[in-house]
This record gives sequence, structure tokens and C-alpha cells, in this order.
Amino acid sequence: MIRVGICGYGNLGKGVEAAVYNAPDMELAAVFTRRDPSGVRLRTPNVPVVPFSKMDEYRDRIDVIVNCGGSATDLPETTPAIAGNFHIVDSFDTHAKIQEHFEKVDAAAKKGGKVAIISVGWDPGLFSLNRLYMNAVLPNGNDYTFWGRGVSQGHSDAIRRIEGVLDARQYTVPVEDAMKRVRSGETPTLSARQKHTRECFVVAEEGADLDRIEREIKTMPNYFADYDTTVNFISMEELRKNHLGIPHGGCVIRSGKTGVNLETSHTMEYRLNLESNPEFTGSVLTAYARAAYRLGNQGENGCKTVFDIAPALLSSVSGEQLRAKIL
Amino acid sequence: MIRVGICGYGNLGKGVEAAVYNAPDMELAAVFTRRDPSGVRLRTPNVPVVPFSKMDEYRDRIDVIVNCGGSATDLPETTPAIAGNFHIVDSFDTHAKIQEHFEKVDAAAKKGGKVAIISVGWDPGLFSLNRLYMNAVLPNGNDYTFWGRGVSQGHSDAIRRIEGVLDARQYTVPVEDAMKRVRSGETPTLSARQKHTRECFVVAEEGADLDRIEREIKTMPNYFADYDTTVNFISMEELRKNHLGIPHGGCVIRSGKTGVNLETSHTMEYRLNLESNPEFTGSVLTAYARAAYRLGNQGENGCKTVFDIAPALLSSVSGEQLRAKIL
Repeated sequence: MIRVGICGYGNLGKGVEAAVYNAPDMELAAVFTRRDPSGVRLRTPNVPVVPFSKMDEYRDRIDVIVNCGGSATDLPETTPAIAGNFHIVDSFDTHAKIQEHFEKVDAAAKKGGKVAIISVGWDPGLFSLNRLYMNAVLPNGNDYTFWGRGVSQGHSDAIRRIEGVLDARQYTVPVEDAMKRVRSGETPTLSARQKHTRECFVVAEEGADLDRIEREIKTMPNYFADYDTTVNFISMEELRKNHLGIPHGGCVIRSGKTGVNLETSHTMEYRLNLESNPEFTGSVLTAYARAAYRLGNQGENGCKTVFDIAPALLSSVSGEQLRAKIL
Repeated sequence: MIRVGICGYGNLGKGVEAAVYNAPDMELAAVFTRRDPSGVRLRTPNVPVVPFSKMDEYRDRIDVIVNCGGSATDLPETTPAIAGNFHIVDSFDTHAKIQEHFEKVDAAAKKGGKVAIISVGWDPGLFSLNRLYMNAVLPNGNDYTFWGRGVSQGHSDAIRRIEGVLDARQYTVPVEDAMKRVRSGETPTLSARQKHTRECFVVAEEGADLDRIEREIKTMPNYFADYDTTVNFISMEELRKNHLGIPHGGCVIRSGKTGVNLETSHTMEYRLNLESNPEFTGSVLTAYARAAYRLGNQGENGCKTVFDIAPALLSSVSGEQLRAKIL
């Protein structure tokens, strides 16, 4: 059994816990937290909850750490710190800083003789993989990524920071007509507005100025100003009843040409429809934790991304069985 | 530049030729054929056409061979024979015999210190990869593969063998309603008939017994008897006008559950829509030829499948650029 440690027990950590629980070849060895461990209740029985500061004491009891912190401030610090002592997987998703993160983690992992796999999840992650495969097979073409319909945590948080807002959920919604055009082989240039719309469900304080809140949302730079945004004011009851889930998904579509004169058209599409973003992302991380452990056992070290991992390393099934049943 | 040799110059060989022509880091070094070389005209200028029997003379002039023979009788012989002397990629697709082929090729490639990648294409190939990724991420679930709408060469050939038939094209067509059910997260048990229908376009000899031909098609064991089949008799002119292309495609859909009690549903889908099956398959083979060459340069040897190839090996772009642009 591969002994997994989870670092951070929010929604993503819980998703990893469930995936490890259902994996035939893995067991949860410990959960590390910065909170008071006595306040953390796991769903897996008989697993210790340990202060983050004591992780090093578990070096002989854990094969791989899944780091479930946030990309903004947590992962840039903790992944390099942990990578010197453990094989590790994280879901770092700040695109602009991936190379910087990669280099720091690589140095730490090489020094410790460990394997780290960063930016694992579905985007970055499975979507990136599909962009790579599609580009390698059809080097002449264009690809498009659409997200949603799904909850954007960042946009929901941005709305919550507006005065008079008690709670909010923001759904990112792909524009059906744009997807249809791309799927049909067209290669349009699409603005942010032409690709996605934004749907907001907002619970306001009693007596709040709803017009002002709506205006502040719709004109917020970076988050909403470049999109067609709809704002729906709802009650706290309705939010709790209809908007507590964290669904997400989306698709990557590439249309490309082959032939000596690039006269032949093809489209490739990869699509996800996820009832729970953190549970699915946790499942991806868990599969890559298996790969990190195996690569470590093969004597590899340093930082990798999903691009560097041979697919068979993700599966609990043997090479011969994979060739017999899945190839 | 990676120097590629193509073995066999049918539709697939021509597809590889076009993909190599459009690859920034590859060049076509020679085409090997069992036909009279003087009768073979390539689309790439200044490339020698060489009798198959003289391939060994090209050991120092070729980095990797793409074997474009057929799976029934050609590849089982030629891939093991070539794998002792060259890195090689093939598209062997007789599912039941993959393990046998793998072992023969593996022994030859190991003896020669070469890398072979077998069963490359889209199914087996990209579809297999997606089945593997989907199963690794969602181990609890069901997956479904649908093919088409596209031309099945084997079924078209089977019709052509019927007395009184001059020419024929058979299209495999996925049942829309079945795909819709699977996409929605249902996990039905589907018979062959419930997943695909078969559409035949047949040119008959003048005066042939059309009823008999239609009956012989519809009752043909293995090929048609288990499917709802429609037979359309058309003129040779119509066949030439509307049915000379070799389109294909299809999709892999997996629906699976996550959560400690498997209470959360997700669906993953991979879809291809190909205007030319051999050109697309040739493009996949070309990307894997790059990987075979690189693995060979790293000192690897033996037989691999798409499951064993890290995705970055397929791309002409550097790791740092991939992380910056595609991750």
C-alpha cells in the first residue's frame, strides 16, 4: 500500500481523502494541518491529524504528500519546503508563476532526492495534457479552452467583498454559440466576452442599495468588466438550497489541418462535466501521487509536471493488464 | 532534424509523409516499398523510393521507421524484423493479438538496443490513452467507446466480396440516443446493436439480384448480423462523387463517482471528428516517431505502447516553453 499524507484539510484535502479511500493500492497515513488538530474530524477512521510543524517526524511513515493548500500564498512556500523530505504532488495553478514555482521545487526535490509533480488537476492538469497531445498531433491549428458551467471561487469571493453583500456564488458559463463554431472547425478570434458569460447569485443585506451592488459587480475590472454579467439577488435560503455545490467543467477543442497543403480538417475535443470540482481535482492529484511514488522508487528526482509523466504510472493496473483491457 | 523512413506507401504512408512534411524538426529520408519503386511517386521531392529488401543499407541514414503496413499479415512480420535494426513505430490494431505482437517486438528491439512503439493511432492510441487517464482518475465508473460516423475499410471490403458487387462503402454510425444517455451519466448495458448502426452504399453489377445482395449483407455474421443495417444501392458516379473520402472519428465517454460513499458524479469525454482517417492516424504515428527517437537517444530500448510515453516526448516544443504556453 502507498502511504499518503494530506497537507491541508479544506475541500480539496477532503477530495483527496475520498480518492485515497477508494484507491485499491493506497492508504491515508496522516493529515497535516495548521489548525488545531483537535478541531479536525476526518471521514477516514483511525488516521492521525498532525500539526503541520511536525510533518518531518513522519518521514518513515509516509510515501508521498498531497499538498492541498492554496496557490496564492500557501503552495509557493510549502511545496518547496516539503519537497526536500517527501515525494509530493500539488495543484499550483497561478499560470504566470508556474516556471518560478517549478524552479524552486526542482532545486529542493533534487537536493532531497525526491520527486515532485506540480500543477496537477484539470486546468492546469488534464486540460493541459490534452492541449499538448492535440498540438503534437495537429501542429497546424488553433485550440480553445472553455470553462463551465461552474462555480468560480475567486469571482464569488470578489463579490463577497462588496459592501452590503452577505454571500454570493458566481458561475462561469461558456457561450454555446462560440463552442459550436469552434467544434464545427471554424477558427474565430474570440474576445473574453465572446467566450464566457458570468452569472451571479447574490444575497444582500436587508436595505442594501441593490443598484449600487449590481453596478459595482458589473464594472469590476479584471473580474467582470470584460464580460456580459447577470446579477440575480436571492435569499440566503435559496442560496443554501440551490447553490452549495461546487460543480465545474469545460472543454478543450482543437481544430487543425493535415495534408501536404494543409487541405484536410479535423477537430479534437476533451470535455469534463464535474459535480464537484474539489473531489475531481482531488482524484487527479491522487492518481499523480501514485506516479510520484513510483518514479521515486525508480530513482528519479526533481520537479515534474503532468507532461513528464508516462500515463501507465497513474494506474494501479499492471502494464500487461492495461495492454489487454484498455489499449 | 529527425530522419524518418516510411515503410509502405498506401493511404497511411501518405498520411505520415504529409505529417513529416509539416513537422518543423523532421525530414523524410526514404520510403520503402514492396512494389516496383519506379512506379511509386512521392509528394515530397528528392526522396528515394527503396525496395523493402534494402532497408538495412539505410541504417546510418535513418533515425526512425514508421511502419505503415496492415495489421492482418504485414505488421506481425515486419515490425519485429525491423525493430532489431531501427527505432520503429507501428499502428498494429488487432486487439486480441497485441500482447503476442508486443512480446515479439520487445525481444527484437531489446536485442538490437532499439525502441519500438506499437499500436499507435487513435484506437488503439489516443482513445486508449483517454481510457487510461479516465480510469486512473475515476476508478469507480464505466466507460464507453463509440466509433463514427466513419468509413470502415474492413466492412467495405466484406461487402465487395459479395457476388454482383462492383464497389461499396460502409459507414459505422454511433446511435445518438445511446451517446446522450452515457453523456448524461447513465451507465446502461448496451449491446452492439444499441451502440452502432451500419450504413452501406453499394454499386451493383447491371442486372444483379439486389434483394440477394442486401440479404447477404444484412445477415453476414460478425460484420452485420448483430447490427441494424441499411443498404443503399447507388451508381458508380455517385460513389465517386460522394464517397471517396475516408472520414472517421468517435468518442470515449466515462462516467464515474467520487466521494467516500461514491455519491458524486462526473463525466469525461474525448471526441474526434476526422476528415481523413489515414492522414490523422499518420499524424499520430509521426508524433510518436519523435518520441521513439528521443527515447532511443536517452538509451532506452524495448517495446512500448502509448501508455509508456511521457507526453512531452511527443512535442517539438521545449519543456520550458510547454510549461509557459500549454500548461
